[in-house]
Amino acid sequence: MTHVTQDLTRADGAALPTSPPALRRANLSLVLRHLRDHVSRSRVDIAEATGLHRATVSNLVAELLERGLVREVGIEHVGAIGRPRRAVALHGAHVGALGLEINVDYISIHGADLSGRVLVERRVGFDTVGSGPDRALRRLSLGAREAVEAMRRAGAVPAGIGVAVPAMVDVARGVVTLAPNLGWQDLPLAARLSEALSTPGTPAVPVMVDNDANLAALAEHTSGVAAGTPHLVYLTGEVGVGGGIIVDGKLLRGADGFSGEVGHLPVDPAGDRCGCGRYGCWETKVGLAALMRTAMPEQAYQQDSGQDGLPVSDPEERAKEIARGLAAGDERMLAAVAQVGRWLGLGGSIVVNLFNPRVIVVGGYFATLAEWLLPHAQRELERLVVAGPAAQCRFVASDLGFGAASRGAASMVVNRLIDDPNTIMDPIPRQAAY
Amino acid sequence: MTHVTQDLTRADGAALPTSPPALRRANLSLVLRHLRDHVSRSRVDIAEATGLHRATVSNLVAELLERGLVREVGIEHVGAIGRPRRAVALHGAHVGALGLEINVDYISIHGADLSGRVLVERRVGFDTVGSGPDRALRRLSLGAREAVEAMRRAGAVPAGIGVAVPAMVDVARGVVTLAPNLGWQDLPLAARLSEALSTPGTPAVPVMVDNDANLAALAEHTSGVAAGTPHLVYLTGEVGVGGGIIVDGKLLRGADGFSGEVGHLPVDPAGDRCGCGRYGCWETKVGLAALMRTAMPEQAYQQDSGQDGLPVSDPEERAKEIARGLAAGDERMLAAVAQVGRWLGLGGSIVVNLFNPRVIVVGGYFATLAEWLLPHAQRELERLVVAGPAAQCRFVASDLGFGAASRGAASMVVNRLIDDPNTIMDPIPRQAAY
Repeated sequence: MTHVTQDLTRADGAALPTSPPALRRANLSLVLRHLRDHVSRSRVDIAEATGLHRATVSNLVAELLERGLVREVGIEHVGAIGRPRRAVALHGAHVGALGLEINVDYISIHGADLSGRVLVERRVGFDTVGSGPDRALRRLSLGAREAVEAMRRAGAVPAGIGVAVPAMVDVARGVVTLAPNLGWQDLPLAARLSEALSTPGTPAVPVMVDNDANLAALAEHTSGVAAGTPHLVYLTGEVGVGGGIIVDGKLLRGADGFSGEVGHLPVDPAGDRCGCGRYGCWETKVGLAALMRTAMPEQAYQQDSGQDGLPVSDPEERAKEIARGLAAGDERMLAAVAQVGRWLGLGGSIVVNLFNPRVIVVGGYFATLAEWLLPHAQRELERLVVAGPAAQCRFVASDLGFGAASRGAASMVVNRLIDDPNTIMDPIPRQAAY
Repeated sequence: MTHVTQDLTRADGAALPTSPPALRRANLSLVLRHLRDHVSRSRVDIAEATGLHRATVSNLVAELLERGLVREVGIEHVGAIGRPRRAVALHGAHVGALGLEINVDYISIHGADLSGRVLVERRVGFDTVGSGPDRALRRLSLGAREAVEAMRRAGAVPAGIGVAVPAMVDVARGVVTLAPNLGWQDLPLAARLSEALSTPGTPAVPVMVDNDANLAALAEHTSGVAAGTPHLVYLTGEVGVGGGIIVDGKLLRGADGFSGEVGHLPVDPAGDRCGCGRYGCWETKVGLAALMRTAMPEQAYQQDSGQDGLPVSDPEERAKEIARGLAAGDERMLAAVAQVGRWLGLGGSIVVNLFNPRVIVVGGYFATLAEWLLPHAQRELERLVVAGPAAQCRFVASDLGFGAASRGAASMVVNRLIDDPNTIMDPIPRQAAY
């Protein structure tokens, strides 16, 4: 009887001749995770740290060596006495992870290998909304194919592809349920992209899809300014405002994968109409369009479209323009940023009252304007958080730039690989020609 | 080298002669948890399900038998062939868990044994606010002492005591940081109560403290109308409004234990002043005082106290009075409940947008008035949740009554015992005379 529940995968399964595959997988994952967290380790150290039998560890390491996921890294001398031990480390220079992000007006690509080496990093302008889903998918698969080729030339074959989309995503099925800013609905993105990338006779490429803010939060937790903080919230500051929430070091997904939908929190019953049709959503207070309406009314977008913010072209350029005005002391812009900053703090207080994170990392234009925006936001946050100073939380600006979500998409692939070395590796022979 | 991290406790430590204590503890916990979830099991079944060696399981079960936590329950016949196997089950009829709740005007007590049998259940009126912390602590320890005696007469000695307080609590230190409705601040409740209950020469009683809404959420997840739902939010509807959040089957605590502070979410910049000094807090819209102001203005409390709701005496009785008026078709009360219901739905939409739970369980007066309140709340929730029908979440009324928090406090003790059989048991000999 193989009965494995979430709490019951911990076991020295590999030492048993009848070891169920799930237990072996858990132990492979355990060794990989240990090596990820400790750079290099001898087999004896791994056995002691994990409680697995030495023979089991040798057996697991042999499999990981054969798959190319770990490599021998030489001798570890432990103290003056005792035999020197041969250490192993995560290798993965020939195993890669490809992350993509498709957003309103760009596609971003991040390819890395398991050892953390970045192999491909680029961003291309693309009118996703105007192109429609079919052309967008073709452009995305072209970008992925080029990246895979570049990664292969660098010696790494992607073990999977992660895609970030500004959307509500059915993660289990890889379907984009609703992406209002892209105009997409019920798009089976994982299946479509996997199909577009497959070559007759070779196995399908595993594609995973998730919300862009979730994946940016993952990137922040993995490699951002507050990396490793167990309770961390990430807020995107773009045309729309999204959130990704890390709780106890893990991405919070909720019952259906729709957690962290901060943009449409109702914060003002007397507020303006939002693109979503409701009134007083937080996005109408802190989205880039809201800032531009106050800071640069002569350039602000027409508010009658009902599509909150779509007409804001090139948000990054607009944010930089406002930054120049602020640096020059433009009074109206300073007042506008103060106002948006207070609303940012108010929304932050909702997040802190509910989640009690240690850090709120802000990206997008919030990061571009951080030095002007965050002091106002921090003051308002501290005024409104009910636990007061006891719940220490600070706003910090992301330094990952607009590539955070694609970087997080690659991290998702790495995490999946480490959590479950079999499912993701079996379908992709090391020399797969896709 | 014993290097045990959160991710590295899974191991067959017990089979190794040098097994570190942490690994043995993890494995004891693993076996206990398995028995909790599967009623009874043979040692062979446990070994197969957990991946532990059979010899290890026999060894672990022997220790648990000796501690009285499991017992032999007879023969399990597996199919027509094969030897009949002797099964074991959680015993714990002589190991108990005591939960207490101290609130504005009552103390509630819930004592049970590990097998789930309820041994003590009572609620006594007590003017906690008027009494001050010293007298309240004396009353609480008297109640605890009586309950412990009653449990001992029934054959169970509590392995620990859990206390629920309507407060922000430093869970790690057992300190009530701030309980505005009780007038308490920085009260070392766990240490004080443990001291009050100790007898010279016997070990200290372990006391754990947590927020009442957190513990009510735990009770709902363990034994309420939506028991077992992995993503569940509980809302207290009393003078104040609190929240407890279950994510992936676990209580969310956040970085400092201050998560779920829903009462003071800022929902209306133009709203009334709240007892906390801020404006437009959710509590000013959905607290019992808000309902009474509209439904029974002639009886409503004076709003100038600055202590939101303290003057509402006997909230349960007031809720029943309103229920009678609603049943009789009182127009003003129906309109008041519709208005509060809509605000309940609005706050619920914030919770759903951020956490994406499957169920919001409501307690206190929200439950008493559920048939009138929840239809309005549900409609508003569905209108405001950004994921729409894709994020299925329904409001349901708790049936645990006002005892939910003390029941959850007892659950907290049981969970701690199962997670870590050593720390909680070692200080309490089976015949400890406290």
